[in-house]
Amino acid sequence: MTVRQLKLPSLVEACDRLGIPAVGLWREPVAAHGLEAAARLMRDAGLTVTSLCRGGFLTAIEPAGRACALDDNRAAIDEAATLGTDTLVLVAGGLPPGARDLAAARERIAEALSSLAPYAAERGVRLAIEPLHPMYAADRCVVSTLDQALDLAERFPADQVGVVVDTYHVWWDDRAPAAVDRAGATGRIHSFQLADWTTPLPAGVLNGRGQLGDGAIDLRSWRERVESTGWSGSIEVELFNDGLWARDGVEVLVETTRRYLAHVF
Amino acid sequence: MTVRQLKLPSLVEACDRLGIPAVGLWREPVAAHGLEAAARLMRDAGLTVTSLCRGGFLTAIEPAGRACALDDNRAAIDEAATLGTDTLVLVAGGLPPGARDLAAARERIAEALSSLAPYAAERGVRLAIEPLHPMYAADRCVVSTLDQALDLAERFPADQVGVVVDTYHVWWDDRAPAAVDRAGATGRIHSFQLADWTTPLPAGVLNGRGQLGDGAIDLRSWRERVESTGWSGSIEVELFNDGLWARDGVEVLVETTRRYLAHVF
Repeated sequence: MTVRQLKLPSLVEACDRLGIPAVGLWREPVAAHGLEAAARLMRDAGLTVTSLCRGGFLTAIEPAGRACALDDNRAAIDEAATLGTDTLVLVAGGLPPGARDLAAARERIAEALSSLAPYAAERGVRLAIEPLHPMYAADRCVVSTLDQALDLAERFPADQVGVVVDTYHVWWDDRAPAAVDRAGATGRIHSFQLADWTTPLPAGVLNGRGQLGDGAIDLRSWRERVESTGWSGSIEVELFNDGLWARDGVEVLVETTRRYLAHVF
Repeated sequence: MTVRQLKLPSLVEACDRLGIPAVGLWREPVAAHGLEAAARLMRDAGLTVTSLCRGGFLTAIEPAGRACALDDNRAAIDEAATLGTDTLVLVAGGLPPGARDLAAARERIAEALSSLAPYAAERGVRLAIEPLHPMYAADRCVVSTLDQALDLAERFPADQVGVVVDTYHVWWDDRAPAAVDRAGATGRIHSFQLADWTTPLPAGVLNGRGQLGDGAIDLRSWRERVESTGWSGSIEVELFNDGLWARDGVEVLVETTRRYLAHVF
């Protein structure tokens, strides 16, 4: 998503050239390229797919809406399996129109997970609940902290449901470092993503994630914290950023690898 | 601030006409009217000043910046005393330029409070730390949760330092209800403010607070929670909202009182 301006073949070529061994994919560009063709492309290039984004949006109240969400999540799980990734990222979903009960919405997520987690496990896919920053609690994700995500995940086996640690979403939270330890100790860090926090936020607050090193987050210390739990997966850089998207994709990829080396390692 | 388009005399007149017995003031309009004159205006109208906004911004690192902030806060305390309110609201301050250590910034706040709290107490003024929504953690307020605010406040006597409970800032937090109980049990709810949460957020995320009833927050249940602790102060409605500010101020005040009756009581 950091370089969504690059079509999949260009992305794969640039990763090869820059020595990037693994990449997280989103469903839309995969569908645009064709699922089977995308899987072949990644396989032929020897490029690991770290995760697929995204399933989720499991907070609907009406049966029809819930059934539709479950169908879509099963499709996402199938796509993840075809792509050869072991992790599907879930964005839980916001409050349905007119609803004001966050706790009830979180319970509906747990209910959906109880049917999706076994389905995913049969296909070798883990579900990773991503807590989103509290500014998205109403319209996008009622799971706002790592502890909340873990409270949900821990109702299921660790190899079925875990969490995403994304610095953009959790950096402000003084309880998040302990929650990282909690997640790591139980093998539930299924994905680790980086973005920096810059201000002012743009309207809609979606596409203002900062390039690594441009913002307020001590990225290196988050990496050290996550790795201190014994976690040793691939780290994703996920920047929703209108400014980056307007530039040449390969140039952004080069810049991002440099920033990563300077501010994360 | 909800009707900042009204100058103080018009505000006082409208409050009298609508039966609003108490109002929270900001320093800027008080200064514009003249401090002594504003105090007289409120006193003559029999209008209670629930709180003065705001002091704070106590996170500077350099001695000059810290001294300047302390001076400004002492001035704010003096103004609160002159206005006859017992509560000064503090917005703690964000990360200084280039800083990335939230915990250290919070310590600097505690250090400043240790000199400001006795100064305020001598003048009959309580300091109320307002946790701001985590989306302001970098540039405005490193105190993002009620628990963090209480961790700071509890280093001081309850009649010197307490907290502000503002629904807009804490509604998303599943630990906030318990923190309300914690604050209420120790007499540290020094101010209770309402605003609703509406999306999409505007650029800069400052002036998009929702009119009561327009958003995702169960305002009535928050009122009940706060009052269940035994708290029985005046409730402030604080809406930073460009749309409301563009309208006739008295009309907005009438609408807000109706919304209050419909969605809070």
